Amino acid sequence: MTVPQGSPRGRGRPRDPETDAAILAAALELFVERGVEGTSMEQVAKRAGVGKLTLYRRWSSKEDLLAQAIEQWVRAEVTPSAAEVYALEPRDLIERVLPAAAEMAASTGFRALVARIMGSAVSHPALMEVYWRHYILPRRELAAAMLRRAQQDGLVAVDADLDVLIDMMAGAVTYRVLQPDPPDATEMLRYLRAVYRQAGLYPPPEEK
Amino acid sequence: MTVPQGSPRGRGRPRDPETDAAILAAALELFVERGVEGTSMEQVAKRAGVGKLTLYRRWSSKEDLLAQAIEQWVRAEVTPSAAEVYALEPRDLIERVLPAAAEMAASTGFRALVARIMGSAVSHPALMEVYWRHYILPRRELAAAMLRRAQQDGLVAVDADLDVLIDMMAGAVTYRVLQPDPPDATEMLRYLRAVYRQAGLYPPPEEK
Repeated sequence: MTVPQGSPRGRGRPRDPETDAAILAAALELFVERGVEGTSMEQVAKRAGVGKLTLYRRWSSKEDLLAQAIEQWVRAEVTPSAAEVYALEPRDLIERVLPAAAEMAASTGFRALVARIMGSAVSHPALMEVYWRHYILPRRELAAAMLRRAQQDGLVAVDADLDVLIDMMAGAVTYRVLQPDPPDATEMLRYLRAVYRQAGLYPPPEEK
Repeated sequence: MTVPQGSPRGRGRPRDPETDAAILAAALELFVERGVEGTSMEQVAKRAGVGKLTLYRRWSSKEDLLAQAIEQWVRAEVTPSAAEVYALEPRDLIERVLPAAAEMAASTGFRALVARIMGSAVSHPALMEVYWRHYILPRRELAAAMLRRAQQDGLVAVDADLDVLIDMMAGAVTYRVLQPDPPDATEMLRYLRAVYRQAGLYPPPEEK
């Protein structure tokens, strides 16, 4: 436990970063294991080893706490920078990004978290909104940049609706990993290549 | 309440179809409102106006009960028959099916149920399996028949991976309806046309 430090964010007392990290980690774990409805502030406090009042001093509700736990998690994820997207050929970028994306998409932790966020999209839209704003939107902007470039290169139709095409690509992966008999990383890599190929971004068989 | 009738299915006492229907309807409602973790056999019994023992005589667990509630719901949904799929041109079939599909996809009830099923895919895979087997698979077979025909007509590439393409189409819709700011039925119809068009199944602008 470090000495509590002041923080400009939040309410009440100065925050202890280690305590906050333990609380956010416990909240994310419980959300993935039990969903929003199966998670309570008491359970989070117990798993993080803090008192319930400590939680309520920092977060006014379970939804606020879970939203910040999701935001914290997505910040730790790496993604290609805009500079990389503009510097590389779309096909080179895909080859570079796909293996790590396949590993992540096939992992149980990712599948479980995506399931929970999708699962609470109608009952607790605030969680999806956080995930959307902090995780999905920046990645959509990069995907749109890649697709616009591919349009210039003649790989994707100039009149394609890029928002719809991005939904088809991201939606296929989200949908696939929640189906019965989910793919392992090797199968997921093959799958991602097939998705990119169907979108027009990946070499046809004779170029492989 | 009708006179209880014998039934070859299930365990214990003869079933009363009206009681079963009330229990299954209550279970589906609670699942949509509260998710698997937020739903208990007690709550279902209370909402259906029956005793808890009545539930346990028929279903050994909450998961079994919810699986049957989902199965019952999907049986009531209509879908074009295989004969229609084979008799119509793909584009005529799409025009015929799309308005009703857009209405359904944009409805809050559908969005909420899909969210819950996706949400429990990792924690309670049995529910996704029931939905997959009884609802998704028959529709995928019809979609595959339509796409194979479109391949013969030169609308879809002969070497397209149809499983992946179906995931892209169905995944886009599932993904879109769970995003913040979900579409209404009019916007959903436009969206479905864009998805079908991207897949190669829908007329390009000059033919509209």
